[in-house]
Amino acid sequence: MAFRNVAIIGLGLLGSSLGLAVRKHLPDVHTTGFDADPAVREKARELGLCHAIADDPAAAVRSADLVVLCVPVGAMRAAATAIAPGLAPDAVISDVGSSKQRVAHALAETLPDHTIIPAHPVAGTEQSGPEAGFASLFEKRWCIITPPDGVDASKLEALGDFWRRLGSTVEIMDAEHHDMVLAVTSHIPHLIAYTIVGTASDLEDVTRSEVIKYSAGGFRDFTRIAASDPTMWRDVFLHNKDAVLEMMDRFLGDLGAMRDAIEAADGDAMFDLFSRTRAIRRGILEQGQDDARPDFGREHS
Amino acid sequence: MAFRNVAIIGLGLLGSSLGLAVRKHLPDVHTTGFDADPAVREKARELGLCHAIADDPAAAVRSADLVVLCVPVGAMRAAATAIAPGLAPDAVISDVGSSKQRVAHALAETLPDHTIIPAHPVAGTEQSGPEAGFASLFEKRWCIITPPDGVDASKLEALGDFWRRLGSTVEIMDAEHHDMVLAVTSHIPHLIAYTIVGTASDLEDVTRSEVIKYSAGGFRDFTRIAASDPTMWRDVFLHNKDAVLEMMDRFLGDLGAMRDAIEAADGDAMFDLFSRTRAIRRGILEQGQDDARPDFGREHS
Ligand SMILES: NC(=O)c1ccc[n+]([C@@H]2O[C@H](COP(=O)([O-])OP(=O)(O)OC[C@H]3O[C@@H](n4cnc5c(N)ncnc54)[C@H](OP(=O)(O)O)[C@@H]3O)[C@@H](O)[C@H]2O)c1
Ligand SMILES: NC(=O)c1ccc[n+]([C@@H]2O[C@H](COP(=O)([O-])OP(=O)(O)OC[C@H]3O[C@@H](n4cnc5c(N)ncnc54)[C@H](OP(=O)(O)O)[C@@H]3O)[C@@H](O)[C@H]2O)c1
Repeated sequence: MAFRNVAIIGLGLLGSSLGLAVRKHLPDVHTTGFDADPAVREKARELGLCHAIADDPAAAVRSADLVVLCVPVGAMRAAATAIAPGLAPDAVISDVGSSKQRVAHALAETLPDHTIIPAHPVAGTEQSGPEAGFASLFEKRWCIITPPDGVDASKLEALGDFWRRLGSTVEIMDAEHHDMVLAVTSHIPHLIAYTIVGTASDLEDVTRSEVIKYSAGGFRDFTRIAASDPTMWRDVFLHNKDAVLEMMDRFLGDLGAMRDAIEAADGDAMFDLFSRTRAIRRGILEQGQDDARPDFGREHS
Repeated sequence: MAFRNVAIIGLGLLGSSLGLAVRKHLPDVHTTGFDADPAVREKARELGLCHAIADDPAAAVRSADLVVLCVPVGAMRAAATAIAPGLAPDAVISDVGSSKQRVAHALAETLPDHTIIPAHPVAGTEQSGPEAGFASLFEKRWCIITPPDGVDASKLEALGDFWRRLGSTVEIMDAEHHDMVLAVTSHIPHLIAYTIVGTASDLEDVTRSEVIKYSAGGFRDFTRIAASDPTMWRDVFLHNKDAVLEMMDRFLGDLGAMRDAIEAADGDAMFDLFSRTRAIRRGILEQGQDDARPDFGREHS
């Protein structure tokens, strides 16, 4: 089987990119979009993000064989409730949420009679909203699918195919492991970035304007991540609390050890850590998961 | 006055970029380079980084009216000692080191009879070595000069002019304040990045290959910074210990507070921080201190 009618609920960065990616890679698939915000729906029409934009969530999913929820993880339950009256009995419900255990639970509770196959494309930028989307967002990126036990194999296969045809490589994982992996590769990095930018904003000895001026020494990288959507990220930390706290405590322990090394002027401990970390960068570049040009290919002057 | 003969000691990223920038922007200025490593000198000749490459540090500075030390901050004293026999009495000695108080002290002690005007161009990439340099590195970036009390005004003016003609904007600051500002905008960000990459490498539940695969969710940004030169950064932490520890303790306090907010599921505290941090990013983009394109202008697919 292959999906022919896809409903996209939530038309921010992820939803708009999904609409554009389907147009680019799956020209035979029809898309219908919906967003809770009328201004976003208007913008989506203007930009042609989907073939049709519905003003009502149940109407948006009426003829869909695949529904992809692209709302903040804290809004998944509400979005599922709103589409329920319109769903065809054999429609597959999926999502793109950044955390998976709690989302899976909320969707299964809300739509107990439907096939639910949660997913998470590991791709994004710091921007949000319907104008931020672009068709190539998912290309050469991983899409992690976290199917529940006993899922219909042909539906799972169809969902994997869908993402592969948008340019992604698909990986199947259980939701608990997903949440642990993403805590370290995404959630903790965001929390650290938000926090250091906050720390730097609140200093008395160093002004904000100095922080901005001299940010090219490293800090500016963190400000990009810390410009990400506050609602989305609040929801991630509320919904992946346990894994985030576990990783956070490891990080805090390691940071305390580095603090002690600096206090003790232990140059060898520093040199050792600073040398080990290069291997991971090499792996990322070899696997095409980052731009290999110095400074991410940023323009210099 | 304007410098006509510049000696560049240390031909890694900073030294090679300086040589190329002088060739581009100051075609009348003659440059002589030296590096402790014979292989680097050979490469410098091959790449034409300077007009001449000397095999001896004292010979390299013989006719220089400006010497710029471009070695790791822990090597500044040794480099100054090595050039001392060749220095003209009225030559200005400057540097590009990332920390300033201790460097200024080491240079003043080693060369008590010379004019020493420390400086720090706030510009770099994660790469190192003579092949990493490029002529535009300093353009539209800040160069902080930290002159000692009672410095010769015309020499200070000449050094400022030199950096301005390479495309930088010059700021005068005292060394202590410099070290505090850079601790927050550069040193702590590097320490955090090195540490989280270390934490992620050492997990048992999440494999290294998973960390690499799913790095596009935020982590990869940190790996770039954590690929920076280990010697350079060890030296920075050894030489800017006090300011780094002070900023570190503030950051650790703020991170602990965020940890508590997550544990308490305090969504408002998170939302508040995540909203405040956007303003700093806006300032950085407005002032041209980062690439404004989403994701730093990284290529997507
Ligand atoms: N951004 C990333 O980098 C990234 C990457 C991978 C996965 N994700 C996940 O993708 C999802 C969407 O993120 P995003 O970056 O696209 O966020 P976004 O740009 O803020 O878009 C979310 C959109 O969903 C709308 N919405 C909220 N509640 C809704 C509801 N009940 N029904 C219909 N629409 C609703 C929002 O409208 P209002 O503004 O009116 O609330 C907004 O237009 C999140 O679950 C996130 O975790 C994000
Ligand atoms: N990288 C940045 O982003 C950046 C930005 C602003 C300022 N800085 C500062 O710039 C300076 C140089 O950093 P870099 O990134 O250019 O480092 P780099 O690429 O590692 O180059 C440093 C060079 O200096 C040589 N060297 C070491 N000791 C020497 C000595 N006593 N005499 C002559 N040459 C010597 C090294 O040779 P060996 O390899 O044989 O030791 C190496 O070739 C540091 O003080 C750093 O703090 C760096």
